[in-house]
Amino acid sequence: MLEAQDRVGGRTLNHTFEDGTAIEIGGQWVGPTQDRLYALAAELGVEHYPTWDEGENLLHRDGRLIRYTGESFGLPPHVIAELGLAQWRLDRLARSVPLEAPWSAPKADRLDGETAASWIRRNVRTALGRAFMRVVIEAVFSAEPEDISMLHFLFYLHSGGSLDLLTRTGGGAQESRFVGGSQLVSIRLAERLGDQVVRLGRPVRAIGQGEGGTVVSGEWGSLEAGEVVVAVAPAVIGRIAFDPPLSGRRTHLYAKMPPGYVIKCSARYERPFWRDAGLSGQAGSATHPLAVTFDNTPDGYEGGVLMGFLEGAHGRRASALTAAARRDLVLDGFATYFGEQAREPLEYVDQDWAEEEWIRGGYGAHLGPGTWTHYGHLLREPEGRIHWAGAETSAVWNGYMDGAIRSGERAAAEILAAGAA
Amino acid sequence: MLEAQDRVGGRTLNHTFEDGTAIEIGGQWVGPTQDRLYALAAELGVEHYPTWDEGENLLHRDGRLIRYTGESFGLPPHVIAELGLAQWRLDRLARSVPLEAPWSAPKADRLDGETAASWIRRNVRTALGRAFMRVVIEAVFSAEPEDISMLHFLFYLHSGGSLDLLTRTGGGAQESRFVGGSQLVSIRLAERLGDQVVRLGRPVRAIGQGEGGTVVSGEWGSLEAGEVVVAVAPAVIGRIAFDPPLSGRRTHLYAKMPPGYVIKCSARYERPFWRDAGLSGQAGSATHPLAVTFDNTPDGYEGGVLMGFLEGAHGRRASALTAAARRDLVLDGFATYFGEQAREPLEYVDQDWAEEEWIRGGYGAHLGPGTWTHYGHLLREPEGRIHWAGAETSAVWNGYMDGAIRSGERAAAEILAAGAA
Repeated sequence: MLEAQDRVGGRTLNHTFEDGTAIEIGGQWVGPTQDRLYALAAELGVEHYPTWDEGENLLHRDGRLIRYTGESFGLPPHVIAELGLAQWRLDRLARSVPLEAPWSAPKADRLDGETAASWIRRNVRTALGRAFMRVVIEAVFSAEPEDISMLHFLFYLHSGGSLDLLTRTGGGAQESRFVGGSQLVSIRLAERLGDQVVRLGRPVRAIGQGEGGTVVSGEWGSLEAGEVVVAVAPAVIGRIAFDPPLSGRRTHLYAKMPPGYVIKCSARYERPFWRDAGLSGQAGSATHPLAVTFDNTPDGYEGGVLMGFLEGAHGRRASALTAAARRDLVLDGFATYFGEQAREPLEYVDQDWAEEEWIRGGYGAHLGPGTWTHYGHLLREPEGRIHWAGAETSAVWNGYMDGAIRSGERAAAEILAAGAA
Repeated sequence: MLEAQDRVGGRTLNHTFEDGTAIEIGGQWVGPTQDRLYALAAELGVEHYPTWDEGENLLHRDGRLIRYTGESFGLPPHVIAELGLAQWRLDRLARSVPLEAPWSAPKADRLDGETAASWIRRNVRTALGRAFMRVVIEAVFSAEPEDISMLHFLFYLHSGGSLDLLTRTGGGAQESRFVGGSQLVSIRLAERLGDQVVRLGRPVRAIGQGEGGTVVSGEWGSLEAGEVVVAVAPAVIGRIAFDPPLSGRRTHLYAKMPPGYVIKCSARYERPFWRDAGLSGQAGSATHPLAVTFDNTPDGYEGGVLMGFLEGAHGRRASALTAAARRDLVLDGFATYFGEQAREPLEYVDQDWAEEEWIRGGYGAHLGPGTWTHYGHLLREPEGRIHWAGAETSAVWNGYMDGAIRSGERAAAEILAAGAA
């Protein structure tokens, strides 16, 4: 197991505050139907607890804060009705997209021929409804509706169950968190495998394959292997020199799977003061760059942690700021939603996943228009002795930790089957 | 001048037939307003001649061949009317896109939020009109309408003048050809610069920059330079290890500029037999994979050369075939349009640009939805001592040889201005 970085975990990463409290600055949640992640965590003794989900949520709109609970999202009834209809259409269409072969969905060419943005424009008519859908898509994909093929949007909904399941906290993909932080799953697994198996700081620069096997090499030396599993993010696969070179078609597939843009931002406070005001810490805004926030206080911690995402264009703009200006922008978001106290945290940390040289973006890659129908069949197709894993290759929970585990199991099964044949 | 390959010319490439006749298997044409290309060719003594454009053109439709001349394209009047209206709208919209800053066009967000495919679906209602637009876009971009941001489509039309100018032979971008083949321009320029300046077979693997200058290196060794111009295709920029690493934003820009897919196919015959039948050699089909053909016989040559493109999905499918099956497919196209004689050429050659390891696709890169508005301003913005050139960075004739020359002149001016400051 050759890892480019000096740590395991990929797009999961713990951060330890000065007082020893660990939070996640990468992927973190686990929820219903993510059975493979639950199973692996249980096997490794990593426990989980419910994400904080008590109190009222906030919608920030036209400079006002609207408190709500339940399904209303603080929106007016006609917008709720419109969004409800759109969601019904989306989930119905999503169910028609076969997870193993999205290109064979009814009207796949047409759906893959447009962006989620143009579909929403036709199917959601109010400015508020459109703005809300944009925030939801940015929160789910860390990419903008114009980036994403409508077919990919539908596949992704189906892959994770439904729009509701993807966006919910309780009962959805944000339902639970891991004790000690999600990276602990990878850390424990690496400990079990040991240093002889898991080699850190070994960027793979070249993979050659011939009749007899493969040679994987880098500045650190080289290794021989019968079969190779490549499980890096699609955006960085092109940095590996393959011999023979990858086919033009596969190169184009990865050229059409750009990563999302997200900066995940966390602030630690002496107390979770927003809870005193009856607030859940969950806020959404169509105008403030910090469009989505959560109470990310670990279970049993006496302090408080607010977390928010700078997604898509907001993330790119914030990445061009100085660290201090970015901190101010984020704290302004927290203060707008939860009060002036939020401007003075004990600690602040943010993580820009596009700046990670061996990852280049989070949460994961999305498929632009025309990609599933033209290149999708290559996603899991081995090239000789090279197999492809990673969250983006999974049919179920694509883009999530659970999908990453499933992809590893699938790649392992491929190799075992090849050995048996 | 460090060139990865053992030849100059990039996406232009001559092929010499057994009898010594040179044709182009890459970019080839020059036309009105491509002043910088005309000027450079003249300076280097490379002459040009009109592309063969006599005789009737063919539209292949529903298994029938329809002969036409002029502007009718062999289409029924109601389709001509519909396409004429669409073209008028396109050219009017295109003129509103500022070439130096497409993101500042009126309604840029909306135009960049959809694909050319969804715009065409709304604005062209007949199946035949839509099929025709698809063939035109594939011929111009070597990519499908669903791949391309509508804003990029409009920018590109404006960059080259108008849809008419881009697609015409006489009076348009296909008007003339170079004596000896277009690669001769680069070959002559390299000869003038000499071996001390032009170093072939030197793939650049790393570019480091500091206060004092830059270090450019590869397996061949390293060189120091005050400033560096990177003029490789966007799809392969990521193969260079930059130190400090490129910003996440710039990495994402290139991740959202996939190349087109095109296989350019040529067959040589004893005579240009189609001319005897009053045909120009120019055919278009919405059903045969070889969707666009030309008479590519060099001026004064007694033999005949037919050339055709396998674009986009047709190219990808054909690339998966054996060389013999691909040849049969292409010759079947020529025979369908020009008669059975076409099945037996003296020679056949094709070039799949996606398989070129240092280029990875032709004719060039296109911008998917959301890219111009979110990343476009980075396209020509230097990163310290690194400057960006290549056809994709040009405001005028973007994607063409003329644009490539303009981009080089612009990058040189940047460096001179930096030196003067």
